[in-house]
Amino acid sequence: MAGKQIQFYYKNVLADVIGPEHGITAQQLDELAKQTTPLILKIKDEILTGNSRYGLLPGDPQIAKSVKALVKHFKPKCENLVVLGIGGSALGNIALQNALNPFTYNLDNNKRKGPRLFVFDNVDPAHFGSFLDFITPRLGKTVFNVISKSGQTAETASQFMIVQKMLETRFGKEKLKDRVVATTDLEKGTLRKIATDAGLHTLVVPDGVGGRFSVLSAVGLFSAAMTGINIDQLLAGAKDMHTRVTNPDFFKNPAAINAAIQIHYYNHNKRISVMMPYSSALYSFADWYRQLWAESLGKKYFLDGGEAYVGPTPVKALGATDQHSQVQLYREGPNDKIFTLLEIQDFGRKIRIPAPPKSARELNYLAKKDMGELLNAEKKATEYALCASNRPCVTVLFPKIDAYTVGQFIFLFEATTSFAGALLDVNTYDQPAVELGKQATFALMGKAGQYTPDRSYADFAAEIRAKTEFDANFVI
Amino acid sequence: MAGKQIQFYYKNVLADVIGPEHGITAQQLDELAKQTTPLILKIKDEILTGNSRYGLLPGDPQIAKSVKALVKHFKPKCENLVVLGIGGSALGNIALQNALNPFTYNLDNNKRKGPRLFVFDNVDPAHFGSFLDFITPRLGKTVFNVISKSGQTAETASQFMIVQKMLETRFGKEKLKDRVVATTDLEKGTLRKIATDAGLHTLVVPDGVGGRFSVLSAVGLFSAAMTGINIDQLLAGAKDMHTRVTNPDFFKNPAAINAAIQIHYYNHNKRISVMMPYSSALYSFADWYRQLWAESLGKKYFLDGGEAYVGPTPVKALGATDQHSQVQLYREGPNDKIFTLLEIQDFGRKIRIPAPPKSARELNYLAKKDMGELLNAEKKATEYALCASNRPCVTVLFPKIDAYTVGQFIFLFEATTSFAGALLDVNTYDQPAVELGKQATFALMGKAGQYTPDRSYADFAAEIRAKTEFDANFVI
Repeated sequence: MAGKQIQFYYKNVLADVIGPEHGITAQQLDELAKQTTPLILKIKDEILTGNSRYGLLPGDPQIAKSVKALVKHFKPKCENLVVLGIGGSALGNIALQNALNPFTYNLDNNKRKGPRLFVFDNVDPAHFGSFLDFITPRLGKTVFNVISKSGQTAETASQFMIVQKMLETRFGKEKLKDRVVATTDLEKGTLRKIATDAGLHTLVVPDGVGGRFSVLSAVGLFSAAMTGINIDQLLAGAKDMHTRVTNPDFFKNPAAINAAIQIHYYNHNKRISVMMPYSSALYSFADWYRQLWAESLGKKYFLDGGEAYVGPTPVKALGATDQHSQVQLYREGPNDKIFTLLEIQDFGRKIRIPAPPKSARELNYLAKKDMGELLNAEKKATEYALCASNRPCVTVLFPKIDAYTVGQFIFLFEATTSFAGALLDVNTYDQPAVELGKQATFALMGKAGQYTPDRSYADFAAEIRAKTEFDANFVI
Repeated sequence: MAGKQIQFYYKNVLADVIGPEHGITAQQLDELAKQTTPLILKIKDEILTGNSRYGLLPGDPQIAKSVKALVKHFKPKCENLVVLGIGGSALGNIALQNALNPFTYNLDNNKRKGPRLFVFDNVDPAHFGSFLDFITPRLGKTVFNVISKSGQTAETASQFMIVQKMLETRFGKEKLKDRVVATTDLEKGTLRKIATDAGLHTLVVPDGVGGRFSVLSAVGLFSAAMTGINIDQLLAGAKDMHTRVTNPDFFKNPAAINAAIQIHYYNHNKRISVMMPYSSALYSFADWYRQLWAESLGKKYFLDGGEAYVGPTPVKALGATDQHSQVQLYREGPNDKIFTLLEIQDFGRKIRIPAPPKSARELNYLAKKDMGELLNAEKKATEYALCASNRPCVTVLFPKIDAYTVGQFIFLFEATTSFAGALLDVNTYDQPAVELGKQATFALMGKAGQYTPDRSYADFAAEIRAKTEFDANFVI
């Protein structure tokens, strides 16, 4: 393996540490190993190597090549890159940017190694409008990357229609291709048609890859590469983690054991899974995890003719910040959570805390310490306090945050999700429950034609309006 | 009342809508009314009017006056305002800024009505260091607002020590007062001493007001007023909501009925409370709510000689964005959540979606619609889909987002929290479980002296290290 590896640490879930009521006993751990080990080869063959669900056969050189070619073409004249996408077409892009570029990237013109990056994943007119005011005078040096497998996602489609009109009005129809990259299906769908008609440069959302597993495909890689992130290292990290999560030995496979622990707790009334990075840069990866976990595992389950509803609820938190917001609940609220803490050994930057004024000797203990030492002490302190309250936690340890370790992290949690789905016996890769809301939106927006063979969208809209119209009897 | 009121809507929790298994029956609602009504006068007398816990006797003109005097003094030469605070000394400031100033406020020099605003609520050296690189050449026009009741909060203290040294080195000790405002206890504490010694301008964190209830005190108002937010309107909104949440009629009191519904569901195995604004601007208020709810209600409970752990887990989500991330779980995961949706009638901005290209007729339904119409259709669609899965939701309806409605919202949820705490029979205003982690941090950072009469910090640190040091047997 090419560099330093991230590590997974799980001692603080054991009964030896947090007691038998909430901890995992040696016997239970052996049972988890027995239950999970057969899944390793199965998942390796079906998902992690063969028919990849993750947007890459790890290290596939073709993807990086096509991305780099477009970066070479677009980067020189680009001062602003705007991603239009939602869900898996946004969360990974945001997470990579925040993890691997400085906090002041968009603000500090002196330090940037590429264009400013904006990711729009909502259709709030105040929010989008404020951005349009900013970008309109800068359109000449702005590139838009519209991302949608189908092109029918209402949010992304509407944003893109506005942008397309704006660009065509300003620069002429034939110039659209100089300012837009479309990331979409290879052959079919609405965005592919639009791209073909306008002669746009395109990148491919691979078949069979759900949005939430797509960050290491062109979906996430183009904006990353444009802003100077080393995508080769990202893919190298993923590839090396691939080796580790396909290890048939449960006790040496971080994805298998992580999933087994998570699902054990789900089955033992800890149905909330908190991810809490002790790193501001990694906070957006907790948000990425939140989609991965929720959409993959939150599923209706048919059993013996009845229905059941399963799936842990992922929660994002930030250390040390949320110690002053959530830790009261985490320690003294119901013991219904499993915590994943992210710890960084080397932040790549030292900031020395000076001595306090003489009148504030009570702060002497901070003097001459490094700020990173404080943050890591807070992580250990919280870990200790959680254990003292018999709350289970695991740690993912980053030697440092760079493209290589982040690539590992992504692949570790994608694989963990595949194991967790197999343990819960759900279809990890679909999202059927999202459809009703989409159709209801179509109906309310006045889509023509039939919702079902028996029913028009207009009729459906009338029903929704009747059910959601404010009833004055219940308004205060 | 001075302007348009926000409204609370609760029909979609009723058994008539989502069925008797998950809905509240007419009989249950009457019981909630009976149980909650006596609390209204009690909370009105003890908390909402008399000995205020919320940082203001609503509309107290003194607070706004002292804040405005300092704004007048500092604003003319200030291009960057940096808040150093954590928890309640940061979340309210961030929430006000994001709700009431444009998304591009810090970025767009042409549109700003005050200094750029930065709020630092973590001690990540990479994050803070990136900011120091940005601000160092701009120190001449930068003001720091350090916020801590005690001055002993390790995160804020260490940030401030770094900033104080930097400013004194650059401008001289005697000039610190031109660049720092300290918001702290009126008389005692570490930051008060430092401020007195350095002759700093100060604002007051009122006694008896927990951080999470302090946004409408000088804690939240100074940065808001500096960036052009109308704090008189904010306080006017709070005052008018005060009238509504002290209404002795349960069915006309939005805080009482909201708390009763929330705690009913907590007691009926829906222990997750999701707040999902359909507004990017209000997303940070979901984060503010998360602290308010978690720290106030997550409490150890002593009963009949035993211990119990209570408290709902608040979760923040964003509409429409999280439809593509969480709604799969929200509809087909366990029915263990109550949803609070925020809906905005008038976004103050219209953005027209143009007609799609001819090759994409399937998008015709979006043509000539307003983007806000789409966002609100998505809200209705999600509400409809949640009801179809028998998931309870309430809505807070904003006629528009401005200082007056945001002031109402803040006071509504502060009062809701007081009612909820009373219904759970916990002490809403303390946070005892945070202490152990703070003390453990002191110990790990090498604080001198005694942790308890029997034990030194050094001994305590040794114990924590022994318990949290990585054990190689459980590292993968």
